Amino acid sequence: MLSYQIETRTNETNATGHIDHTVIPVWFELARTPIYELLNPGRSLAAWNTVIRKIEIDYLGQVRHGQDTEVRSCIGEIKNTSFQVLQGLWQAGIAVANGSTVLVCFDYKSGQKMAIPPAVRGQLAAWQE
Amino acid sequence: MLSYQIETRTNETNATGHIDHTVIPVWFELARTPIYELLNPGRSLAAWNTVIRKIEIDYLGQVRHGQDTEVRSCIGEIKNTSFQVLQGLWQAGIAVANGSTVLVCFDYKSGQKMAIPPAVRGQLAAWQE
Amino acid sequence: MLSYQIETRTNETNATGHIDHTVIPVWFELARTPIYELLNPGRSLAAWNTVIRKIEIDYLGQVRHGQDTEVRSCIGEIKNTSFQVLQGLWQAGIAVANGSTVLVCFDYKSGQKMAIPPAVRGQLAAWQE
Amino acid sequence: MLSYQIETRTNETNATGHIDHTVIPVWFELARTPIYELLNPGRSLAAWNTVIRKIEIDYLGQVRHGQDTEVRSCIGEIKNTSFQVLQGLWQAGIAVANGSTVLVCFDYKSGQKMAIPPAVRGQLAAWQE
Repeated sequence: MLSYQIETRTNETNATGHIDHTVIPVWFELARTPIYELLNPGRSLAAWNTVIRKIEIDYLGQVRHGQDTEVRSCIGEIKNTSFQVLQGLWQAGIAVANGSTVLVCFDYKSGQKMAIPPAVRGQLAAWQE
Repeated sequence: MLSYQIETRTNETNATGHIDHTVIPVWFELARTPIYELLNPGRSLAAWNTVIRKIEIDYLGQVRHGQDTEVRSCIGEIKNTSFQVLQGLWQAGIAVANGSTVLVCFDYKSGQKMAIPPAVRGQLAAWQE
Repeated sequence: MLSYQIETRTNETNATGHIDHTVIPVWFELARTPIYELLNPGRSLAAWNTVIRKIEIDYLGQVRHGQDTEVRSCIGEIKNTSFQVLQGLWQAGIAVANGSTVLVCFDYKSGQKMAIPPAVRGQLAAWQE
Repeated sequence: MLSYQIETRTNETNATGHIDHTVIPVWFELARTPIYELLNPGRSLAAWNTVIRKIEIDYLGQVRHGQDTEVRSCIGEIKNTSFQVLQGLWQAGIAVANGSTVLVCFDYKSGQKMAIPPAVRGQLAAWQE
């Protein structure tokens, strides 16, 4: 399990007083940083090698600004060219959102999907629990 | 079916050259404007009466800046306190993303779910096709 | 004078109930669309040919979501490689923010400033009033 | 001088490959966190007591994603109800942007400016160098 601390920002709140729901995908993306680092060491955007295929987010409770905010991530199903990231957003000991994201390994030059490299696959499998 | 034109913004692109995936939930929210207007005429944020319970987005193709961009929305399942919005993002005649969102009618003062008012329910049903 | 209508977004508000101050530079950028179109017809980001050198914004009053929102832009000083854009943000007949932006014509390949092309200069001068 | 580390985000880049200029005001706001904490301990948005009156930003060089990114802030002029924050954005030992912001102490309930409290004034003065 990967733990990632999020620093909430004032401009991420909205007029209802809470964090806008559109911010959670941004935080989940940020919390995938160690996964992107595994796939693309140094995380150069010129060498980016994944695309997002699907996201699902369940909003479980109001998300607040200025709280201790943690995303817990683990890996779900691993296929040939894609894998799933399962994430939970925690504030003050409570899960306020859950999400899953399907990432596909992708060669931007050829526009083709790529098999997950074996070394990456091993580390992803180690993050499944 | 509700059609909504989106004006794409330069700061919504990222360094891969396309629209960042976290922008699509923002556009889908914007395209639900007529639905929020139905539920809360004038759309005063002080009188806001829905919460987002769940979003799902399938990314089907690269989303580009500066294209003619349309979101097509219709209503899916309607329950007692919640309903589903089904949306497609179209650019140049191609569906580049699909999504579904579950909205719950909610009283922010009492913190309770509310039944969908009958008059709203009738219009939502009319938007199911 | 160039007039540009802005569609405000819920996620641009913050918990004080108004539009967050960081959104105004985004709207002013959007309202410079006709100027970018003049400098780079079609506005391809691959052929982008300006950089922002400086922005100044005066916040005059609370900026609200859901109001009729207009940015009025005209051109200020025009130099050899740069020019100034003067902008006002209007809601319900009131100027709620003013800004100025200095744009430099720039060749991203060589990393060099470029003189403003004569045809562009003529149109910019026509927008000075 | 106050030092604040910024974690850059992928969605803050744009298609030119760099951080979009509209992101810098967001980072400068974030780096004012210790100043907001001084003015409003706990930083409750319900008790928010400042407004932004003016921002100025000079863009000195390209701002990159994934770099060590620091904002250095100090206090400039202090008046009766307002004060100035001077900020520099540093990446890899280079100042890539400078900015100044004028903040006004403000009572949101009465809609009136307020004198800077003496205890706050003392700490602001200590941050002038």
